[in-house]
Amino acid sequence: MRIASILVRDTPALGVKTARGMVDVTALDATVGSSLRALLERGPEALAILAHRAAEAPEQLLLAPSAFRYRTLLPEPGKFLCLGLNYVAHASEATYETPRHPVVFTRLPSSLLAHEEPLVVPTCSEQLDYEAELAVVVGRTGRDIPKERALEWVAGYTLFNDGSIRDYQKRTHQWTIGKNFDGTGPLGPELVTPDELPEGARGLRIQMRVNGELLQDATTSDMIFDVATVIADLSEAMTLQPGDVIAMGTPSGVGAARKPPRFLRAGDVCEVSVERVGVLRNPVVNAAK
Amino acid sequence: MRIASILVRDTPALGVKTARGMVDVTALDATVGSSLRALLERGPEALAILAHRAAEAPEQLLLAPSAFRYRTLLPEPGKFLCLGLNYVAHASEATYETPRHPVVFTRLPSSLLAHEEPLVVPTCSEQLDYEAELAVVVGRTGRDIPKERALEWVAGYTLFNDGSIRDYQKRTHQWTIGKNFDGTGPLGPELVTPDELPEGARGLRIQMRVNGELLQDATTSDMIFDVATVIADLSEAMTLQPGDVIAMGTPSGVGAARKPPRFLRAGDVCEVSVERVGVLRNPVVNAAK
Repeated sequence: MRIASILVRDTPALGVKTARGMVDVTALDATVGSSLRALLERGPEALAILAHRAAEAPEQLLLAPSAFRYRTLLPEPGKFLCLGLNYVAHASEATYETPRHPVVFTRLPSSLLAHEEPLVVPTCSEQLDYEAELAVVVGRTGRDIPKERALEWVAGYTLFNDGSIRDYQKRTHQWTIGKNFDGTGPLGPELVTPDELPEGARGLRIQMRVNGELLQDATTSDMIFDVATVIADLSEAMTLQPGDVIAMGTPSGVGAARKPPRFLRAGDVCEVSVERVGVLRNPVVNAAK
Repeated sequence: MRIASILVRDTPALGVKTARGMVDVTALDATVGSSLRALLERGPEALAILAHRAAEAPEQLLLAPSAFRYRTLLPEPGKFLCLGLNYVAHASEATYETPRHPVVFTRLPSSLLAHEEPLVVPTCSEQLDYEAELAVVVGRTGRDIPKERALEWVAGYTLFNDGSIRDYQKRTHQWTIGKNFDGTGPLGPELVTPDELPEGARGLRIQMRVNGELLQDATTSDMIFDVATVIADLSEAMTLQPGDVIAMGTPSGVGAARKPPRFLRAGDVCEVSVERVGVLRNPVVNAAK
């Protein structure tokens, strides 16, 4: 099942992508609402029922591609946790040691974007960089989750571009400010449920293309800490909740590590892809002066 | 004006503390609602009108101290930004250099607590530490806010205890995980509007007492980056929004830097105080096994 946060005639809704096209499930059943977070809070059964109903939805609830736009998949999650340096080759190019524990920072809602919404080069920096990432969406409440069972807490997977303002990220030893500029964090386009993917989303090719040029190319099996390990580790500290997002880190090939550096410029188009999860595409613009 | 998020007979409400006592302003006017964030989104005028009406509220809307409990002042802010190392003597005791830019990390809603709610020593660590902090609550939306006008964006001030699990904080170079354990971040008890305090909340004595023993004692004038500087700096990266929280960092005297270290134990009672802002008190308990 693939579920999306969408706008239909400028009104927020949820859509389920079926073999026949995108179904407006908010129009199908008003109790579904338009918030993916709220839907996830209703538990895995609610999702399963929705998948079934969407498959059988009447023709008139199918949305033509021009009839909807994507919203940020989860515009205000309770937590948006990000892993840094979770691929050996990226840790190396970023001149850090391979971490012995997950390196964690957070994303604020004000930095998030939808599929197709523009990434913004700010006025104060020319160092907007891309980072292709697999993201995990939590489906159940849990604390001290055992690693062996941790994948039961996954509602699904999606894509994230962890757009980073490198000079601000390195301004002090804490990266948060450079990871939270307005208009730098596209999330989506769809939540893909685990039944559509290999266990723990392992072994999937992850890539970043800018203007069609392949700049990152790895597999999710290269992650130092896999999805189950990370869920278990994070839940030692905090209660995970439905709709929480965990971005799993980026492989090597980021712009800052290239010689010469390759930062994003207005007119560029970024595409994050993970095999069987989808493609997250965003053009780049300059901030309004 | 002092405004609090409270529970009245287990129902969320907002209270305004007047010379006569705490007024249930949700009962006074149902359009006020029970969310401080939503109230702040209505703008500074809404607060001013509320202050006026609370002062003239009928006697029967005054709550006896036993008739209400405090909730977390802002249980789900859009952003909760924290400054690290913002007092010279604390940067030194923490063996960091004095920062040249604000050092920023974030707090997640799942870690927040109310006044009088217990701080929790987790099962996986014995290193729960206290940090007395002044916190700023944002009242208006803004980006690229000039420093000279930045205090116009302040809705008020409150208190924060930035409870930190030191071994997890230092597990990697990013502090986030050790700053976000469940049950470690008390915020409150009240939002105090700027008219009650010196400009920028400067020159106020800030203290931490544990079981009555004075362990931190400084003045807010010792901050390296003052409130206006921090608002201007953060807004260069991100749009500040009503209800956002900025914790301004802690002075020297934290438990980890003492010889021998003085970590919190079940039975301890922490009191953060900032002159004219109030006292934020929390007992300490062990996590349930």
